Amino acid sequence: MVYLSKRVEFSAAHRLAAPDLSPEENARIFGKCCRPSGHGHNYILEVTVCGEADPVTGMVMNLSDLKALLERQVLAELDHRDLNCSSGLLKGRIPTTENLARAVWEALAGKLPQGRLHEVKIWETPDSWAAYRGEG
Amino acid sequence: MVYLSKRVEFSAAHRLAAPDLSPEENARIFGKCCRPSGHGHNYILEVTVCGEADPVTGMVMNLSDLKALLERQVLAELDHRDLNCSSGLLKGRIPTTENLARAVWEALAGKLPQGRLHEVKIWETPDSWAAYRGEG
Amino acid sequence: MVYLSKRVEFSAAHRLAAPDLSPEENARIFGKCCRPSGHGHNYILEVTVCGEADPVTGMVMNLSDLKALLERQVLAELDHRDLNCSSGLLKGRIPTTENLARAVWEALAGKLPQGRLHEVKIWETPDSWAAYRGEG
Amino acid sequence: MVYLSKRVEFSAAHRLAAPDLSPEENARIFGKCCRPSGHGHNYILEVTVCGEADPVTGMVMNLSDLKALLERQVLAELDHRDLNCSSGLLKGRIPTTENLARAVWEALAGKLPQGRLHEVKIWETPDSWAAYRGEG
Amino acid sequence: MVYLSKRVEFSAAHRLAAPDLSPEENARIFGKCCRPSGHGHNYILEVTVCGEADPVTGMVMNLSDLKALLERQVLAELDHRDLNCSSGLLKGRIPTTENLARAVWEALAGKLPQGRLHEVKIWETPDSWAAYRGEG
Amino acid sequence: MVYLSKRVEFSAAHRLAAPDLSPEENARIFGKCCRPSGHGHNYILEVTVCGEADPVTGMVMNLSDLKALLERQVLAELDHRDLNCSSGLLKGRIPTTENLARAVWEALAGKLPQGRLHEVKIWETPDSWAAYRGEG
Repeated sequence: MVYLSKRVEFSAAHRLAAPDLSPEENARIFGKCCRPSGHGHNYILEVTVCGEADPVTGMVMNLSDLKALLERQVLAELDHRDLNCSSGLLKGRIPTTENLARAVWEALAGKLPQGRLHEVKIWETPDSWAAYRGEG
Repeated sequence: MVYLSKRVEFSAAHRLAAPDLSPEENARIFGKCCRPSGHGHNYILEVTVCGEADPVTGMVMNLSDLKALLERQVLAELDHRDLNCSSGLLKGRIPTTENLARAVWEALAGKLPQGRLHEVKIWETPDSWAAYRGEG
Repeated sequence: MVYLSKRVEFSAAHRLAAPDLSPEENARIFGKCCRPSGHGHNYILEVTVCGEADPVTGMVMNLSDLKALLERQVLAELDHRDLNCSSGLLKGRIPTTENLARAVWEALAGKLPQGRLHEVKIWETPDSWAAYRGEG
Repeated sequence: MVYLSKRVEFSAAHRLAAPDLSPEENARIFGKCCRPSGHGHNYILEVTVCGEADPVTGMVMNLSDLKALLERQVLAELDHRDLNCSSGLLKGRIPTTENLARAVWEALAGKLPQGRLHEVKIWETPDSWAAYRGEG
Repeated sequence: MVYLSKRVEFSAAHRLAAPDLSPEENARIFGKCCRPSGHGHNYILEVTVCGEADPVTGMVMNLSDLKALLERQVLAELDHRDLNCSSGLLKGRIPTTENLARAVWEALAGKLPQGRLHEVKIWETPDSWAAYRGEG
Repeated sequence: MVYLSKRVEFSAAHRLAAPDLSPEENARIFGKCCRPSGHGHNYILEVTVCGEADPVTGMVMNLSDLKALLERQVLAELDHRDLNCSSGLLKGRIPTTENLARAVWEALAGKLPQGRLHEVKIWETPDSWAAYRGEG
């Protein structure tokens, strides 16, 4: 079992506000992240797959294929977009980094062999990230 | 003459489109940066001042004062905002990194002693930046 | 189960020397890290919590609360200090990165809901780090 | 149980091509990585050991010893070399990052106390890495 | 006058040895960089252009055009190549970072308006770089 | 004229306080940087030399020689030391980054051919640096 990871970047706008909460509660919880005009980030997405290295190619998975999968399933939906309007992938969930990590997992897991996807990790800033490993 | 620099970060949304151009021309020039929903970045701002180190304190300028100036003059206007709506600092200019660098220079130069400000440098992504040194 | 992490930095002096060892043994084991005058580092602290994302806010934990907790419990004790004199948190243990990681875990675990703290990771330099996950 | 990690860098040439495949298949699978002239990378190697911190020294392992081990067992074989000719460590396997991670594990595991080695992680570029933890 | 910069990466093999020197002299001067098998690096190339920001587009130069120019004039020649065999761009010069910076300048200067190219900077490792500004 | 730069790191303790000022004034100016116990940093030092690339070796200067010079003239004095006690290099000046940059310049300039040293740049943290170019 070897772990293999690819890192890509995307730039997106978002705004954090819970639709079921009052403006005051949203301001208290999300601070400047809930300002109506929105803001944005350079997100870093790191996807880790795992498995045996193929004895012929020495690869767990071809990184070109993994990159193409990320571009098709994730970047086409999220890069240079407003995450609050990205209906397909986030399905109306608030675009926190936690929800993003889970949404990217769901967008990828069905496109990879069973058990191949190990972790989806997203940095919203260089100082904060969320990761999902398919647990729960 | 010593150069002293402080780096801060801000997160903002923006959209690149020239008001005098047609949607087709904007799409050709700005690509996915002109999608109507906008997108965003973690901007890095690096401001360099220069001067003699004070013989008593050993400082060209107190970095706490420089940081406070950046927070008051720049971050309060740009952080967690939509740059296209930040009327004060950008004065309706298109929020390219080039225009941002010049706008931040203009917001700072009058608040520092003559000749103290040396360079304003802004990274829009880790791979692209613009700098302005008050020339022209 | 989603993992969420916050990274902060602190600057501190320290000196590595075991009180039960002779100067010669300390020099052999700790090298230039045991010079009497001490030295220092820009430490990076990354704290990871885990749990379900709240269905209303989309958060495992509010990063503002986590950051405030780190400032109160850890940075107030360690930032711009001499770690050898930081009696509270390190309780007289040698300030190796291993001991620091464990000490930060102990300072945080009781302030978070049971099972919420997942990992404390500290970089002493960009090339060396220690992590503690509450095991043993 | 504390985890302790050391990061070193090495620069090497390599070429990816499976000896059992035709030039056309190699080109399809490895793309520009199989050009006959070869290319190269600044590899980053991060090795993580684990164990109890020694009550006298506060260390899981002396980082100087770990660094010396990496230099002797790994860097002497791989740094400023052509990985395709590094017969000892890679034993004729294709120098993918996956195979490298496993080869470095094998070069280190026997030189450390049983159970001490936790993970070998190698970045081929800042955007792609492989890790091996002795599983399988 | 605003400065605008784009950073790209390429991976290449090289070997440092002066054809006019004996093997002993080459070993003394270039150390492990002159081992016959060669080695390689992840090079970072940063190209800075300067000029007035266009009043309509807010750009000194379209970064997409600059990136396309770098791909066509530089990366097509250097990425995933052996620099010692890259006859066109280096014209037989030893592939030191100094010579590389000058060669990239020469490959770009004629493709940009007079005075537009400001600096070519190349990192061979994260700890060493060379820059050329068209002087001399 | 080509510019060539080498980056090294050192770890040191320091405390900022002007001997001619009262404790209250020092606290107002230097904040937590003047706490009596001191603190410390991982400093990054980047030294840039300039000149013609030698036509035989392709080098402005041998980076091994530059690194050896930095180790002998600077790191031996500053690494794993308390900068307030480093009498030789800082000559009793307050160890601000500005003073450090100038002190390192003075330690190097006489050891290099006239006009060869271009810039000394020191990062005290990833977010703040000072540079000296021999002006004034």
